[in-house]
Amino acid sequence: MKTISVRKNVLAENDLIATRLRERFSKNNIFVVNIISSPGSGKTTLLERTISSLNDELDIQIIVGDVQTENDADRLRKAGGKAVQIQTNGACHLDARMIQKILEGMKFDGPGLLIIENVGNLVCPASYDLGEDVKVVILSIPEGDEKPLKYPAVFHRAGLMIIAKTDMLELSNFNPQAAYRNVAQINPSIKCIQLSAKTGEGMPSWFEWLKDNVAKKISS
Amino acid sequence: MKTISVRKNVLAENDLIATRLRERFSKNNIFVVNIISSPGSGKTTLLERTISSLNDELDIQIIVGDVQTENDADRLRKAGGKAVQIQTNGACHLDARMIQKILEGMKFDGPGLLIIENVGNLVCPASYDLGEDVKVVILSIPEGDEKPLKYPAVFHRAGLMIIAKTDMLELSNFNPQAAYRNVAQINPSIKCIQLSAKTGEGMPSWFEWLKDNVAKKISS
Repeated sequence: MKTISVRKNVLAENDLIATRLRERFSKNNIFVVNIISSPGSGKTTLLERTISSLNDELDIQIIVGDVQTENDADRLRKAGGKAVQIQTNGACHLDARMIQKILEGMKFDGPGLLIIENVGNLVCPASYDLGEDVKVVILSIPEGDEKPLKYPAVFHRAGLMIIAKTDMLELSNFNPQAAYRNVAQINPSIKCIQLSAKTGEGMPSWFEWLKDNVAKKISS
Repeated sequence: MKTISVRKNVLAENDLIATRLRERFSKNNIFVVNIISSPGSGKTTLLERTISSLNDELDIQIIVGDVQTENDADRLRKAGGKAVQIQTNGACHLDARMIQKILEGMKFDGPGLLIIENVGNLVCPASYDLGEDVKVVILSIPEGDEKPLKYPAVFHRAGLMIIAKTDMLELSNFNPQAAYRNVAQINPSIKCIQLSAKTGEGMPSWFEWLKDNVAKKISS
């Protein structure tokens, strides 16, 4: 019982900080995406391609969370992106306080796009509001089409599901229609995009989705 | 600070229960494997094949952990296995108390093999001793060869790393030698097996590893 009440306090404190972050992002016309997925679903490759395609059109800043290593932020900087790394040192998710702290050292006044690449984990990051406008969940083809049923919290809270690595579709028994049926049971209003960062298939839909949302944020 | 001390208490209590479980398993000559991986790395498919190949030689019982659904235990029972499901209802890992509780309803007196398929998550399950003889970490080809560096705790604590889905090697830029180098930095004594449950490549090494360990357990 003690553990549960401490956990509730932690989440309440997190939500308070997240609310303040959200107000700040809105004031500065920054559209914020919190990307959540399993390890190895291709988040960083997707972001490399996103940077090279949209860097001229949008002001993009990326915050990358990992348990250990700076590898991902390094990769994104090499791709031309503005990226900072949070190493959680064992923690299985980012929280709002980590975002608040790293923002202190960043110059990002908007308008633009802030992408937060969460720790690779389909469970824990779902509970932590980071002040984002929308959670994006990535489900990669090799993981299997039943995952929305097995990890419902993150699929329930996401506004967009990206089915990634469609180049691997032929080698797998992943059925996109089954994935859509499964996610609709959990979250009937979720939007879905299928793409492959490797072949480029479907990437324009993702770019349009980002650009539309940044434009809406600025005009709101 | 309060959260940290509560977490320490939770882990200390878990370890106490795990120690009792380990004594009981040893007394009954049951070799216990705790399998940890990302969602969708192919744990359940590997276990389906393991059951169909080893069910005549070994007494095998499987405990499957998932946040939601009974799908995996259903699949394993269809493959001819004795499988029970723990639904964690949101929790991101199995703990020793869950194992202790589900054992009360099971008749499994040994000698034999108990396989625990943990919740799909490379972070949190690493901290929870379930009374197992050995943790087995699965790294599937589509996830990428750098994962041991990014999720060091589980690779550090595992006795065996399975590189799975080798049938996908050609489509990916996964370099098995890089994966070995990376895991050796974290855990120089870890054993490694490469396999594909789909094509059967490498499966005999996994079967031999299991049979050898069960035999050692019985003779110890």
